[in-house]
Amino acid sequence: MLAATTVKMAAVNEVMARGRLEAFSDGVFAIAITLLILDVTVPPGSGAHLAHALAREWPAYLAYATSFLTISVIWLNHHAMFSKVSHVDRRLVFTNSVFLLVVAFVPFPTRLLAEYIRDSEGARTAAVFYGLVFILLSVVFNVCWRAIATGRRLVRDDVPEADLKAITRSFRPGIPMYAAATAVAFVSPVASAFLYLVIALFYALPARLVTRARS
Amino acid sequence: MLAATTVKMAAVNEVMARGRLEAFSDGVFAIAITLLILDVTVPPGSGAHLAHALAREWPAYLAYATSFLTISVIWLNHHAMFSKVSHVDRRLVFTNSVFLLVVAFVPFPTRLLAEYIRDSEGARTAAVFYGLVFILLSVVFNVCWRAIATGRRLVRDDVPEADLKAITRSFRPGIPMYAAATAVAFVSPVASAFLYLVIALFYALPARLVTRARS
Amino acid sequence: MLAATTVKMAAVNEVMARGRLEAFSDGVFAIAITLLILDVTVPPGSGAHLAHALAREWPAYLAYATSFLTISVIWLNHHAMFSKVSHVDRRLVFTNSVFLLVVAFVPFPTRLLAEYIRDSEGARTAAVFYGLVFILLSVVFNVCWRAIATGRRLVRDDVPEADLKAITRSFRPGIPMYAAATAVAFVSPVASAFLYLVIALFYALPARLVTRARS
Amino acid sequence: MLAATTVKMAAVNEVMARGRLEAFSDGVFAIAITLLILDVTVPPGSGAHLAHALAREWPAYLAYATSFLTISVIWLNHHAMFSKVSHVDRRLVFTNSVFLLVVAFVPFPTRLLAEYIRDSEGARTAAVFYGLVFILLSVVFNVCWRAIATGRRLVRDDVPEADLKAITRSFRPGIPMYAAATAVAFVSPVASAFLYLVIALFYALPARLVTRARS
Repeated sequence: MLAATTVKMAAVNEVMARGRLEAFSDGVFAIAITLLILDVTVPPGSGAHLAHALAREWPAYLAYATSFLTISVIWLNHHAMFSKVSHVDRRLVFTNSVFLLVVAFVPFPTRLLAEYIRDSEGARTAAVFYGLVFILLSVVFNVCWRAIATGRRLVRDDVPEADLKAITRSFRPGIPMYAAATAVAFVSPVASAFLYLVIALFYALPARLVTRARS
Repeated sequence: MLAATTVKMAAVNEVMARGRLEAFSDGVFAIAITLLILDVTVPPGSGAHLAHALAREWPAYLAYATSFLTISVIWLNHHAMFSKVSHVDRRLVFTNSVFLLVVAFVPFPTRLLAEYIRDSEGARTAAVFYGLVFILLSVVFNVCWRAIATGRRLVRDDVPEADLKAITRSFRPGIPMYAAATAVAFVSPVASAFLYLVIALFYALPARLVTRARS
Repeated sequence: MLAATTVKMAAVNEVMARGRLEAFSDGVFAIAITLLILDVTVPPGSGAHLAHALAREWPAYLAYATSFLTISVIWLNHHAMFSKVSHVDRRLVFTNSVFLLVVAFVPFPTRLLAEYIRDSEGARTAAVFYGLVFILLSVVFNVCWRAIATGRRLVRDDVPEADLKAITRSFRPGIPMYAAATAVAFVSPVASAFLYLVIALFYALPARLVTRARS
Repeated sequence: MLAATTVKMAAVNEVMARGRLEAFSDGVFAIAITLLILDVTVPPGSGAHLAHALAREWPAYLAYATSFLTISVIWLNHHAMFSKVSHVDRRLVFTNSVFLLVVAFVPFPTRLLAEYIRDSEGARTAAVFYGLVFILLSVVFNVCWRAIATGRRLVRDDVPEADLKAITRSFRPGIPMYAAATAVAFVSPVASAFLYLVIALFYALPARLVTRARS
C-alpha cells in the first residue's frame, strides 16, 4: 500500500527520466572538459624559440591537467550521487542546472590561472579566483546532494542509510580543502596551483583504496 | 481497428525514432550552453588590476548566467513537449531544426550583451537584440508545439487533452514577457538585462510550486 | 541455414554495434552545427553604430543558417541511410570517418563565406570554395552509401530492394545541384550563396511532400 | 560457486556501468575531433589573393586530416578494448581519465604543426612535439589496456585468451612507429608530418584486411 502510494507520488513529481538528466549533464561535463584545450596557446611569432616558448607554457599545462582531472572526479561523484536517485523533480533539475552552470564556468578561471600565474601582479588574484570557483562548485554540489538525500526525498528505497552517510562523509572534506588551498594562494600563488592538482589526485585515489580494502 | 490504422500511419510517416531526435537536440542544447563561457574574457594586460578587471566583468557573468539558465529552462520545456509525442515526422524534424538553429544562435546575442551593456552608445541595441532573439525563440518554440499538438497530429493516444491545454497555457506568457523586457531595453538596457534573468528564474520556479501543490 | 550463415558472418565482420557508430556520428553533427555560431561576430568598437554593424552582418547570418540547415538535412539523410544497415564493418567505419571529417570541416568554408562575400576580390573564391566542400560532402556521402548498399553488403534482410533504389535516387540530385550553384558563384557569388540555402530548403521540403502523398 | 563470487566482487568494485564510461569517452572523442577545425584559419585581409591564401593553408588541412583520422582510429580501438570489459572499477576510470586528458590535448599540437611547419625555425620543434604527444597517447592507451587485461582483471569471462593476445599484439607497433616518425622530424619536419598521416591510414586499413582474411 505504502509502496504503491510512493510510486504514484513519484510519477506525479517526476519531470523527466533520470537517465536523460544524467545524459545531459554528462554532455556538459564532456564539453567543458574538452574546451579547456582552447586556452592552451603559444604566443604568435615564437618560431625561433618555439621549444623555449613551449616549455614556458607549463602553467597552461598545469591548469589544463588540474581542471581536467578535477572535472573528471566531479563527474564521477555526480554519477555516484545520481545512482541513488529514484526520480527527478523540478527542484533537482533546477539545482543541477545551477551546478552545471558552475561546471561550464571552469574554463574561465583555468584560462586566468594559466595566463596570470607568472604575472607578478595578477598571480595572486588569479589563484584566489580559481580556488573560489571550486569552493562554489563544492557548495552547489552539496546543495544538489541535499535536494536528493535530505529526508531521503529522492532516494531509491533499496539504498541503505549507511550508503547515504558514506557519500555525505566523502563530500565533507571538499570545501575545507579548497578553502585551505585558496588561503595558500594569498602567500604563494604557484604553491596553491599545485595544491589544486593534489586535491584532484587525492579525490581520485583514496576512494580506490577504500574500495579495495572493502572487497 | 482505428488503433491499428493509427499505428500503421505512424509507421509510414515516422522518419526517425523520437529518442534519436531528442538525443540530438539535447546535444545541441548541451553544446550551446557550454560554449557560452568562451565569451567570458578578461582584457589582456590586466595584471596589475586583475581583481578590479574581474569585478568589471559583471555584465559577462550576468549574460552568461541568464543565457545558461534560459537555455536550461527551454531544454526542460523541450523535454516536456516531446514526452507527449507519439512519432516524429518530417515536418517536426524540420521545425525542430529551425528551433535548434535559434538555440545555437544564443551565444552571439549573449556576447553582444556582455560586451556592450556598459557602452553608452551600443547598450540599447545590444539589449534589444538580445530580447528579439528570445522572442524569436519563443515563437519558433510555439510553432514546434503546434506541429505536435494541433489536431493531436503527433500526440500519443494516452495523453489527456487537459495536459495539452496545460502546456499550451504554460507557453503563453513567454512572448509577452520577452516583449515587455525588450521594450524596457529602450529605456534602460541594464534593467532589461536583469529582467531577462528574472524571466528565466520565473520559468524555473513556478512550475515547481505548481507540481508541489498538485501532489 | 542461409540466415544462420549470414548472422555468423555478420558477427565475425562486425566491429561495433550500429547504435554506437550512429551516436558518435550524431555527436560530431551536433557539435559541428553548434560551433558555427563562433564565427558570427561583430567588429570591435562598433558601439556607436551597433545596429548598423549588426545589419551589415547579414552574410554571417545567411552563412550560419545555410550551413546549419544543410548539416541538419545531411544528418537526417545519414539517419535514413543507417536505418537500413544490418551491421557495421571496418570499411563502413573508415568511410564514415572520412565523411565526418568533411562534416566537421564545414565551419571553415562557412566562416570564409561570411567574411569574404562582400569583399570585391575574395567573394568569388569564398563562394566557389564553399560549393566545392559541399560537392565533396555529397561525393563522400555516396561512397558511404555504396559501402552499405552495393550488393546489399551491409543491408538488413528485411529492407525491400525498392527502398534502396528510392534512397539511391534521392541522393542523385545532390552533386549536380551543388555543381550548378558553384558554377553560378563564378558569375555572382551572392546569388550562389542564396542558392546554397535554397538547396538545403529543397532537400528539407520535398521529402515531406513525398511522405504526405504516400500516406 | 566461483562464478557467484566473481559476480559479487564485480558488484562491489563496480563504480559505474561500462556503457556510461564509454558514452562519456565517446563524447570527449567527438568534441576533440570537431574542435580541430577551429584552428584552420585564413590570415585576415587575404581578399585579393584568397585562392592563393587558401592553397597556402595546406599544412592546416594536412594537420586537420591527420589528427582527425588518428583520433578516429584511437576511438575505434578504444571501443574494441572496452568491448572486452566485464565491469569498471576506480582504477580503470582514473586511467581512462588520464587517457582522455591526452586525447583532448591533441588540438594543441595540431595547431602548432599547422602553424609552424613552414617556419624555418619552428618546424622541427612543432613536428617533434606532435610526435611526442602521440607517443604519450600510445603509452597511456597501453596503460589502460593493462588495467583491463593484466591477469584478466576486468575481462569478461567469455572472452578467449587468444583475443586478448591479438589485441595486445595489435597495439604493439604504435609506440615504435611514432618514435620513428618523431626521429624523422629532426631531419625533415614535413616528411614526418606525412608519416603521421600514413600511420593513421596504416592503422585504419590492415585491421580491415585481417578481418576480411578471417571471414
